Order: sequence, then C-alpha cells, then structure tokens
Amino acid sequence: MAEQVPGGYNGKILRVNLSDNSISEETIDELFCRKYLGGAGFIAYFLWKELKPGVDPLGPDNKLIFAAGPVTGVPLPGSGRHCIGAKSPLTGSYSKSEVGGFWGAELKHAGFDAIIVEGKAEKPVYLWIQDGEASLRDASHLWGKNTKETEQTIRDELGDSLIRVTSIGPGGENLVRFACIMNDLKDAAGRGGTGAVMGSKNLKAIAVRGHKRPKVADPERVKEIRQWVLDNPQRWASLHDLGTGAMMETHIATGNLPIRNFLDGEFPAATDISAQAIRDTIRIKMEACYACPVRCKKVVKFDEPYSVDPAYGGPEYETLAAIGSNCGIGDLKAVTKGNELCNAYSLDTISAGAVIAFAMECFENGLLTTKDTNGIELKFGNAEAMLKVIELIARREGIGDLLAEGTARAAQKIGKGAEKFAMHSKGLELGMHDPRVKAALGLGYAVNPHGADHCDNMHDTGYSQPGSSFDSARLLGMLEPLPADDLGVRKVAAFRDIHLFNIVIDNLVVCAMLPYDANQVADILTAVTGWDTSPVEMLRAAERTMTMARLFNIREGLSAADDKLPDRFFQPKRNGVLSTKFYDREQLEEAKSYYYTLMGWDAKTGIPTPEKVEELDIK
Amino acid sequence: MAEQVPGGYNGKILRVNLSDNSISEETIDELFCRKYLGGAGFIAYFLWKELKPGVDPLGPDNKLIFAAGPVTGVPLPGSGRHCIGAKSPLTGSYSKSEVGGFWGAELKHAGFDAIIVEGKAEKPVYLWIQDGEASLRDASHLWGKNTKETEQTIRDELGDSLIRVTSIGPGGENLVRFACIMNDLKDAAGRGGTGAVMGSKNLKAIAVRGHKRPKVADPERVKEIRQWVLDNPQRWASLHDLGTGAMMETHIATGNLPIRNFLDGEFPAATDISAQAIRDTIRIKMEACYACPVRCKKVVKFDEPYSVDPAYGGPEYETLAAIGSNCGIGDLKAVTKGNELCNAYSLDTISAGAVIAFAMECFENGLLTTKDTNGIELKFGNAEAMLKVIELIARREGIGDLLAEGTARAAQKIGKGAEKFAMHSKGLELGMHDPRVKAALGLGYAVNPHGADHCDNMHDTGYSQPGSSFDSARLLGMLEPLPADDLGVRKVAAFRDIHLFNIVIDNLVVCAMLPYDANQVADILTAVTGWDTSPVEMLRAAERTMTMARLFNIREGLSAADDKLPDRFFQPKRNGVLSTKFYDREQLEEAKSYYYTLMGWDAKTGIPTPEKVEELDIK
Repeated sequence: MAEQVPGGYNGKILRVNLSDNSISEETIDELFCRKYLGGAGFIAYFLWKELKPGVDPLGPDNKLIFAAGPVTGVPLPGSGRHCIGAKSPLTGSYSKSEVGGFWGAELKHAGFDAIIVEGKAEKPVYLWIQDGEASLRDASHLWGKNTKETEQTIRDELGDSLIRVTSIGPGGENLVRFACIMNDLKDAAGRGGTGAVMGSKNLKAIAVRGHKRPKVADPERVKEIRQWVLDNPQRWASLHDLGTGAMMETHIATGNLPIRNFLDGEFPAATDISAQAIRDTIRIKMEACYACPVRCKKVVKFDEPYSVDPAYGGPEYETLAAIGSNCGIGDLKAVTKGNELCNAYSLDTISAGAVIAFAMECFENGLLTTKDTNGIELKFGNAEAMLKVIELIARREGIGDLLAEGTARAAQKIGKGAEKFAMHSKGLELGMHDPRVKAALGLGYAVNPHGADHCDNMHDTGYSQPGSSFDSARLLGMLEPLPADDLGVRKVAAFRDIHLFNIVIDNLVVCAMLPYDANQVADILTAVTGWDTSPVEMLRAAERTMTMARLFNIREGLSAADDKLPDRFFQPKRNGVLSTKFYDREQLEEAKSYYYTLMGWDAKTGIPTPEKVEELDIK
Repeated sequence: MAEQVPGGYNGKILRVNLSDNSISEETIDELFCRKYLGGAGFIAYFLWKELKPGVDPLGPDNKLIFAAGPVTGVPLPGSGRHCIGAKSPLTGSYSKSEVGGFWGAELKHAGFDAIIVEGKAEKPVYLWIQDGEASLRDASHLWGKNTKETEQTIRDELGDSLIRVTSIGPGGENLVRFACIMNDLKDAAGRGGTGAVMGSKNLKAIAVRGHKRPKVADPERVKEIRQWVLDNPQRWASLHDLGTGAMMETHIATGNLPIRNFLDGEFPAATDISAQAIRDTIRIKMEACYACPVRCKKVVKFDEPYSVDPAYGGPEYETLAAIGSNCGIGDLKAVTKGNELCNAYSLDTISAGAVIAFAMECFENGLLTTKDTNGIELKFGNAEAMLKVIELIARREGIGDLLAEGTARAAQKIGKGAEKFAMHSKGLELGMHDPRVKAALGLGYAVNPHGADHCDNMHDTGYSQPGSSFDSARLLGMLEPLPADDLGVRKVAAFRDIHLFNIVIDNLVVCAMLPYDANQVADILTAVTGWDTSPVEMLRAAERTMTMARLFNIREGLSAADDKLPDRFFQPKRNGVLSTKFYDREQLEEAKSYYYTLMGWDAKTGIPTPEKVEELDIK
C-alpha cells in the first residue's frame, strides 16, 4: 500500500539533522498509520527502529520526536494535542509526554504529522516551519531566555503574531534532567526530561505556522461529534468551571493526595490550594486549547507578595499537589509562583515538586544540611525555600545542581539511605496520586515503560466505581465494578485494557479529559480517516506501541526488576485515612506477572515472547 | 443487579424435568445476560455449571438445552436462529449447533430465552409452549414418525397451523449418534448428535406458539439496520439468487471441495451438484428464515426417479459436498433425495455423508465387504447405495447400526487400520472444507471444543484475502491479508479473534451469512438491549464461552491430544490441485500452542490457567 493516507494525516514526517543541517521529508502510507496511529505510537516506532542501543540521552545520537496524531488539528474538542518523545535522560528508557494547546494543531496545519530531530547543532538554533517549508535559524540571541521572551522574540523577528512556538527555557538549556518542553507558555510536555534532550541538541525552539487543515473523511460526522460534546456540558462541567484541582477535598478524604513526600494523610491547608480557592482568589479567566469548549485552563494574576504573569497560566492539580501539599505547602500564591517559574524555565512541575519534597525529607532527617542547601532551611512547608530551589535547579546552582539530576540520581549521590525518601519508578517522579488508594494505579506506576506517570492510568478509580469512566471500562469487557484497592486478576485484566485504551488516546492524539468512550474514539477515527475501524483494532495498535516501548527498554538494559514501587507504599501513612492501609508487595509481584502474561510477555522476565513480537510485526 | 433484562431478552429460562414431569421458570438478570449473551454462551454456562462430570450423553443426567439469544425473534435479518447444545453422544464433549428457520423466534415470542430439558420421560412426550405456559403431552402416537408427520399431527391436534415444531424423526429415536434436531422441516441443528440426546429422553418434539415480540430498546435503530441490509443487496445477492453451493467451481479450483473422503482433487461431476445446477433443474423457489430478505433456502421438487417432497427443502453446500462429491456422487437428484431422507429422519447430512464416504473407502479397501453391508456394493459413486445406507442408519439396521455410531466409533469397531480413513476431529465428522487449502480452518477443526465444525471458522479465506469478510478481520486488528495456507503466529492471532467473533454471532444468535461486521454486531446488540457495548466487550463474553467449553471438555477427560486433525491432511491429495500440498504437522502443533497462549490456556496442556478462570469469573 503506497497510496497517500486519506484523512487526518498529512502523510509527511519532517526529519531534521542538526549536526549537518539537513532537512528532509519522508512520506508515510496508510498501513503505517493504521499500525502505529500517531503520537506515542509513532514515537515508540521510531525510537525502537532507529535509535542505536545505549546512546547517551543527552548526546547527539538521541532523537527528539514531536508527533501529532490523526485527530490533532481537526476541529474536534480535545484535538489540540501532540506528543513528544526521546530516550529519557531521567529514566534511560523510552519516554513520551502529551501536551495540549495549539502548537500540535499548527504543525498539522503546516503540513507535517511529526518531526524527528537528530544530531546536535554547533550553536543554538531554532526550527521554523511554515506551510510545508522548514528552515533552521540562529538562536544564539535566544539562549538563556525564558519561554515567554523566546516566543515573543521569534514572533517579532518572523513578523507574525500567530506563530505557535514550542521551546525550552534555562531548565532545558542547562540539561536539568526533568526539563520539559513548553508550548503556548502554559502547556508543558512535562514528563521524562525531553526539554533536556532539546537543550542538549542546542535546539531552542520550534516555531510553526500553517494555513491548511488536514482533510477529514467525514466532516459532517466530525461536526456531529463536536456538537455532541457541546450538547453534553454536564460531562465536562466541573472541568469547565474549575479545571483540574476541583477534587482536592475528595483526594484528602480518600487519602489520594500526596502530602509531605507521600508521608502524611492529614493536611488542613489542602483546601487553600484547590481549584475552588483559585477561582475565589487569583483567577482572572479560563482558557481553552485548540477547538475545545471545555476551557479547563486557569489564568491567574496577582502582584503581591510576588508578581505572577498571567501569560504562564495557572497551576493544574498535579502542580498544586507537587509543589504544594507534597512539599507541605498550603500557600496558594507561592505554589502559583512556583508554577510560573517552572513554565518560564521549562521545568516539569511534578518532578520539580517531587525532588524538592525529597530534599525536604532529607533535610528534616539530617541527610542534607544548610551547608548543602546554600543556607536554605529546606523544611516541609517552607514556601520561600521551594521558590528559591526552583531557581537554583533551573540554573543548576548549588543544591539545584544536585536536584537537577532528578530524585533517583540525587538520592544515590546523597547516599546515607536517602533512597528510601526517593519517590519514583524507573527514575521518573510519581504523579500526584497515591497507589495505596488506587491499586491499579500502583501497578501502572510500576510497569509503565516511561516510569511513574499518572496519565496513562487515569481511569483507575473510574472503573472501580460506576460512573462516567466505568462506562469505558464496561465497553472493554469489565462488567462489574471492583473495589479501588483490589488488585486481583480481574482488576489486572481491566487495568491492561484501560491502560491500552489510554494509549489509543495518546496515539490519536486526543485529550484524555474529554468524555469520549471507547466507541466514540473509534467513531472519531473513522470520521477523520474514513477507516472502518473498531476499538479492537485500536487496542491492537496500542498493544503494538506498548510492546515496542518494552522492547526498547529491554534493549537499554531495563528489566522486570525495574517495574517497582517505592518502599513507602508498602507501609501505611503516618496519619490520616491511610494510616492503616498499605500496598501488598507480593500482590504487586503477582499482578505484574499476570499483566505480563496478558500482554504476551514472559510472566517472569516481562520480555515480549518472540511469538508476540512476530504477531505484532515489530521485529 | 436483580432488575429485569431491558431489551431483547424475556429474562426467563424454562426448565423441564422429564423424569418427574416438573416444569419451572427461572429468571435471568442483566449481568447474567451481559456475561453470557445467549445461544452458545448460555449452553456453555449451563453445561459447565450444572452437568455432573462423566454423565452418559444418552442417559437421563445429560441436559438438552435450546437457547435463543438477545437478537432472536427481533425483526432483523438473520435473527431467526437458536442454538441447541448438550454433552455430545458423538464426541463426549461440549456440543452446540445453530439452526435457522422460525422456531427460535417463536420461542422468544412465547416468552422464553431458553429451555433446559433434564431427565428422561417414561413414555414418549412432547413439550407444548404457548405464550408463557408450558405443558408435557403424550407423544406415543408420534413415535416412529418422520419429522413432517410429526409437525402436521401436532398442528392438527393443537388446532393451530402456525405452531412451530422442532422434532426428531427415527434417527433421533434410534439414538443415531449424529442425529440432528429439525425445525420447520428444512432447518437442522445438525452437528453433535443432539437429536440422539432428545431421543434418549423420549422427547419427540417441542411445539411453540407465541404472540409477543421481545421489547427492543431502540426500534428505530433496528429498522435502520434492517433497511441497511435491504439497501445493500450486493452484499447477499449470491446467497439470494443461489443459496449456498454457488461456489462449487471455486471450491474445485482451490482444492477446497472434499472428493471421495478427502482423497481426490478431481471431480468433473461437481458442477452437476452446484447451486446453479439446482436452480436450472429442480428448484421451484427460494424461501427465507424469520424476518430475512436474503431468502437463501432452496425449495426443490421432482418425481423421477425418486419423489422428493418440497416440504423438506433443498440441499445446502455442506450436504451437496457430504452426500455428493465426498461420496464420489455427482447425481444431483440422488443427493437431493439423500437430503430429504436425512431431514425426514433427523440425521445430520454432514456426518451421514462423511460416515458413508468412510464406509465406501473401507469397502474399496476390503475392510468392509458385501457381507458387512447387507449386500450393498458400497463403492464411491454408488448413489443407490448411499440412499439405502441412509435408510439403514436411521433404522440402525445391518451396516446402518455400525455407521449410526459415527465415523470414529465405526472405525474402532472395524479395526484393521480403518482409523486412517476416519475423517473427524474429537469424533465429529469434518465440515466440507479442506484444511490443506485453508490453514486456519484446520486449526479450527482441531481446537474447536465440539469437534471439526466449519461454522465457527467460516471467515478463514475471508481474512486471507481482501473482500467483505476481510473487513471484519481488519476491524479486529488484522491489517494485512495473509495467504490462506499461512499458519504463522499472525494468522493464529487473527484466527483466534475471528473465531471469537463467530462465537459472538453464535451467542446473539445471528446468522453468520448476513453481512454484519464486528461494529454492526455491537450496534445491533446496543439497538436491541440498550447496552452501550462494543466489540471488545462482546469478544470478552465469547472468550468466556470458549473457556467454559474448554473447562467442560477437560472435566470430561479431553486434552490437548484431542485437538488434532486426521492424518490424511498431512499428505497430498491423490490428484488435482492439492496433489503436492499438505498440512505441516509441526506447524499445527506450534499453532495450537500459540492459540492456547492467546486464550490464556497453558501453552502445552491447553488447560485454562487458574488466573484466566478467575479473570473470566467462571470458577
């Protein structure tokens, strides 16, 4: 099948080698698109097929991939997303992270489905893509600038205020291992340190402008689906009104909210950093991603005691928890300032908050002292300390240079048993949800190929209790709700399917916050591409993605032993609702083994069987 | 969940114990229906849950189950079907067979989703079900009568010419191990010998009359789906014009047509027994099942050299091949007469033809002589011999008594190496398709829990070549066509999914000849029940059915060693297109093993793992 891909896709990959300044286009055909879909699927494919084993994540042989999907840039709610991947400098594994906003849609409108960046530029450059044409431009004058200055300067010098820019700030330039890549200033491809990979390549930004929407197979059906979302505001009302962070009280009540590095269950100040508190104090409006009526993104502004620039948006739940409660901080303005700094410097707020919480616990236990911390009293609850440390991390100064290595490496360097305070899996700091509450989430943290990301495990409570998310679980064959703390084989099977469904979402690339169920996602793909597809076909593609990611990790030296959770989760919290409840280590091992089996991987080693590899055609 | 099932179902099972004449009703709820769906799913459930291990298939402890599905009796093309199951007297395994016509729809309209018949009546009885009421009536006067006389007598004595009757003739009464159960005279639940089970219980017939259509959730959508079928006659034109048997020339060309007990590839007379030949000679009209515009059922009539009663319908492809080419017979009228006899006596035409072909080969090789055959020259091509032997089988007289035991048992009794002429798997005679042409079909013959039935493996060539059936394969994640003779892991994975999809069809119960793909089948179930379901959920239910059937068989002493093909397929044909091509034994073993793995069964023993059993909740 060599024909051009019919709908949703442009059929074009842009390959940019920064070492020799070569830029080329490659076509992709329908079979390729149907097998790998896009987004995370494209990333897993190219990393698995093209990356030499054992490359330095921060060396020129790593590749940085920006991948849109068939749905990106189509006028549908949730379609303003793309995915960024590379071998992670944080985990050494396959890595990918989705991000919303407008940049991905603009890339599609400019004629490309994905960009593969190779090599390393001699001097800082940025990539400029306009309606199918791409060129590299000098970025020496942008180096050192934060993301807002970068975006503004590029728009000014190219003379188009509608150019969309994805870029790194000092965090990425300084190779902070958890540096993210920011687009539209408010939107972060947060996890896994792709910002450091971008920095290592001397690539400051990618600016995009496009005027051509990708052709869709059934524009009427696309309109109908859009209208269905508009006609069902009850399905996204909470997100529309408050954005993420509206569930803070529930998260405290269930024990899900991480408090003081996952130590505690009690934190009265948590309600001060909720989305409701933001609405009632510092919020000036809500904003949307491309084509989305949900408008879940907070915009905040205040001038006292710090000045916060509304251009950088407001903190999401993960940020409120990571920089807030997980550091014992209930000062909303401080947390919001921390969010702004991370966005300006291109630091992942989750990893930043988590590594600071880790450092605070080390400090309180005497493993770090003021001698190590540039004199900062790095205690839980110290908001000023948190803000100072973010600055230091971005500049890699003093204690910041240590923490810029990420929690796992910092713990190793500190030694003295610091590992037991290091809350990560495979080196990726945990999302802000406690697996002691959601058993399947814990399994997801453990087995996820890119580490303890919450994004692919969002439905964990959903399929445990009837409700909107359970609908999708039922479509996938999970007929009865199971308790959230259950981790038996039925839960593992449900986890596997829901996990794969989330990978489908990541491949398309669609926003996981939209209320599309498995049938609707298939419906969307059919409307966009004209393929008569089904949830089964899409799950098969997701299985391919996950198995390629697994194979990549094994080639990089990871094994089943790396599919683990921090020791802390096998103990209860110090106080609060989870003070008597903890994760069962043996049950996790059994669950891992059954998950491997269901994936067609060896039950013990987690290595995909030769038969499965052949079946999925990914040799 | 104790609520009544919303749509498609009546929520009622009728349980009839013939030993003590008790009749009771049992309710089924939504969760039950969603887990087991209906048809083959109900049968697998009740056999697995209720049958004592090791019961005599022809004893009172066996249970005979008639199961409709959620779609049966709904005004949709393909909905006139039900499924009959029991522990098979032919195979000793789980057994089920689908059948079209009107009886199943009438059962639903009379208020029941299924009937479980237990025990054994002292004297012949029949069951009479009218609008929710059931009673047992004396059938002494019907014993010995053929199916037409039985139907007519019952209608007359109950005074309603619209009563639908399912019954056995002398074949079932005489416990011919491959006796079938006939309804509407033309429609046979053919495979596995359920007619003998009915005979062993002294149950002559079940007469049904009902006036209430089951409520459907979305009547408008049901109408739309019906209209889609009507609007796409090109998808069923061949069946409409000719019925099954239209592909005779293709089957010869590919080598798929069984000729002389699967020995030969050449048979010029095959075109004389094609559906085209029937149309041009003996056909008087085409008829339909309930609510079906396809009208694929031939009605034939002639008086010379035999008289054939049009009430018994005309021969399907399987019959044309089994009684025809597989016995070396190209005499259409003789084959048609044989079909009539089988329908009148309630004998499965496939097993009847196969066991006669087996006996012919034994005869030609001197393992049987005229001393054994009541003087009949039982040679390939002897049409008169074939007709005589059918009579003898039905009456269990002479050679007929031996052959009434089925091919496997007859071969054992004959000894002298007769086993090598016995074309069966697990004791069930093979469907009329040659696995040397269709590799996945061979795997299906081997692993099918009820033996070498072709029905669940119909799409084998379909997914090998682009075309209408390939559409369904693609929906199930099979993106590229594979050669028909391929049996690698990708083919095995495709087989597993298509096989499960066919089980879904059997569970609903929908006709597999209708052009519904996997999405449409989910759509149908949603329209009928109101469930927001998907192909994934339905495949999971099918997985449950197959694993229950497997567990049942293991309890009955079957093992992976019983998942096999006759030796003949590992050799080429004597002549014709397959004279150089044969099945690879080692590849079959590898394919079996990978199929087990994909099903969550032990790769070597084929025993479902404890985890899979728990996951599917079928302990």
